[in-house]
Amino acid sequence: MDVRIYYEDTDAGGVVYHTNYIKYFERARTELFRSHGFFVAELAKNGFVFPVVRLEIDFKAPAVHDDLLSVITYPVRVGGSSITLCQKIVRQNDGKLLVEGLVTLACKPAVQSPTHTTGDPPDA
Amino acid sequence: MDVRIYYEDTDAGGVVYHTNYIKYFERARTELFRSHGFFVAELAKNGFVFPVVRLEIDFKAPAVHDDLLSVITYPVRVGGSSITLCQKIVRQNDGKLLVEGLVTLACKPAVQSPTHTTGDPPDA
Amino acid sequence: MDVRIYYEDTDAGGVVYHTNYIKYFERARTELFRSHGFFVAELAKNGFVFPVVRLEIDFKAPAVHDDLLSVITYPVRVGGSSITLCQKIVRQNDGKLLVEGLVTLACKPAVQSPTHTTGDPPDA
Amino acid sequence: MDVRIYYEDTDAGGVVYHTNYIKYFERARTELFRSHGFFVAELAKNGFVFPVVRLEIDFKAPAVHDDLLSVITYPVRVGGSSITLCQKIVRQNDGKLLVEGLVTLACKPAVQSPTHTTGDPPDA
Repeated sequence: MDVRIYYEDTDAGGVVYHTNYIKYFERARTELFRSHGFFVAELAKNGFVFPVVRLEIDFKAPAVHDDLLSVITYPVRVGGSSITLCQKIVRQNDGKLLVEGLVTLACKPAVQSPTHTTGDPPDA
Repeated sequence: MDVRIYYEDTDAGGVVYHTNYIKYFERARTELFRSHGFFVAELAKNGFVFPVVRLEIDFKAPAVHDDLLSVITYPVRVGGSSITLCQKIVRQNDGKLLVEGLVTLACKPAVQSPTHTTGDPPDA
Repeated sequence: MDVRIYYEDTDAGGVVYHTNYIKYFERARTELFRSHGFFVAELAKNGFVFPVVRLEIDFKAPAVHDDLLSVITYPVRVGGSSITLCQKIVRQNDGKLLVEGLVTLACKPAVQSPTHTTGDPPDA
Repeated sequence: MDVRIYYEDTDAGGVVYHTNYIKYFERARTELFRSHGFFVAELAKNGFVFPVVRLEIDFKAPAVHDDLLSVITYPVRVGGSSITLCQKIVRQNDGKLLVEGLVTLACKPAVQSPTHTTGDPPDA
């Protein structure tokens, strides 16, 4: 998955703000799921969500404004109630590995919406 | 309401990213409501939300990393189904007016949560 | 320009958080500039930045998770030291106009980076 | 350090978007440094930055809109060129531990500003 870096992604240090790489990880997982016919938003409507329960990430080099990045994702461990993915972010123009990490997702029923957390199902 | 500027708020231009001031406006509205005994999250649970329907904002001068800002909010027009607030952002150490604008909120029932839109896709 | 809505774009109201549309405006301006051979990040390195000085935006309908949006941008007024663009966000699957606004940019020399403001504190 | 959860912090799952907790970690580090007389923005101006080079985080339970959180930070390893901090996020009204992690910061000269990356060192 490609990610272009805009002003919104950067910080006053002149580089991408570190938590934003983790957003790109999530975009890439959504697109990976889509490519296998699974739609994260649809699944959530039907009560299946995949919250991140653990992150282990190494930030090796920074991206800067206007960089074009690739996010690479592949599974490393699939369990009954969780899955761990390896995700890497590489800059396209020099192939440099910028960030890599392990992301563990749980598979569990969607949390109740904050508009319906009083024990009364929305359709009741 | 006070707002401290952290790295997350800034961009590679060395200043606060422009849309973030509008987040501070929303924080300040939430706290203003709270000071009058209205809790935005509680209201949403009970089906009342106040979406922004119009913004008119002048960005006069930028804030930078570590600035401490004040957000000032007061109503300028209260209608049956909407309210318009004037909101200003001032830097505390020199009193400089950085941003000012008019924010119009509608009062309307909460949208259905995406986790509970069973049978009625929003885009259908 | 296309924008896909991910979890990061949404809020607990189940819709896109209002300030995020204004980020999509900025992404689209960057791509529009690029399509005319102007690279915003390069221009900034050479001392030319285009800060938003005024926004006037109507939020007409919300986008939701996984929506695919188009951002449409065209100039409405070009002055000596500023330019005003009209920007619209339309949902692709039903053609619905969600957001439209006028964005005024100034053209001026880049602010000094916070890492290089030697001797001249920005707040002095 | 206290963190109040606003709409901007949440996502369509009705909870705080996972990367935002890592922003709160950074706010808390900035305030911890400040309490010891070190100002992150000042240090950056003088060429000292502390980029996150590694994160190891467990997300144990979600925060929701309007929660008031505490961020607790303490050092676990101080090396010559890096420091590792343990950071925890606890919800104030029930004392529940929501997130905990290890954050490793490098200490190194500030990256060149994007406004000065054209072969001319900033001090030249």
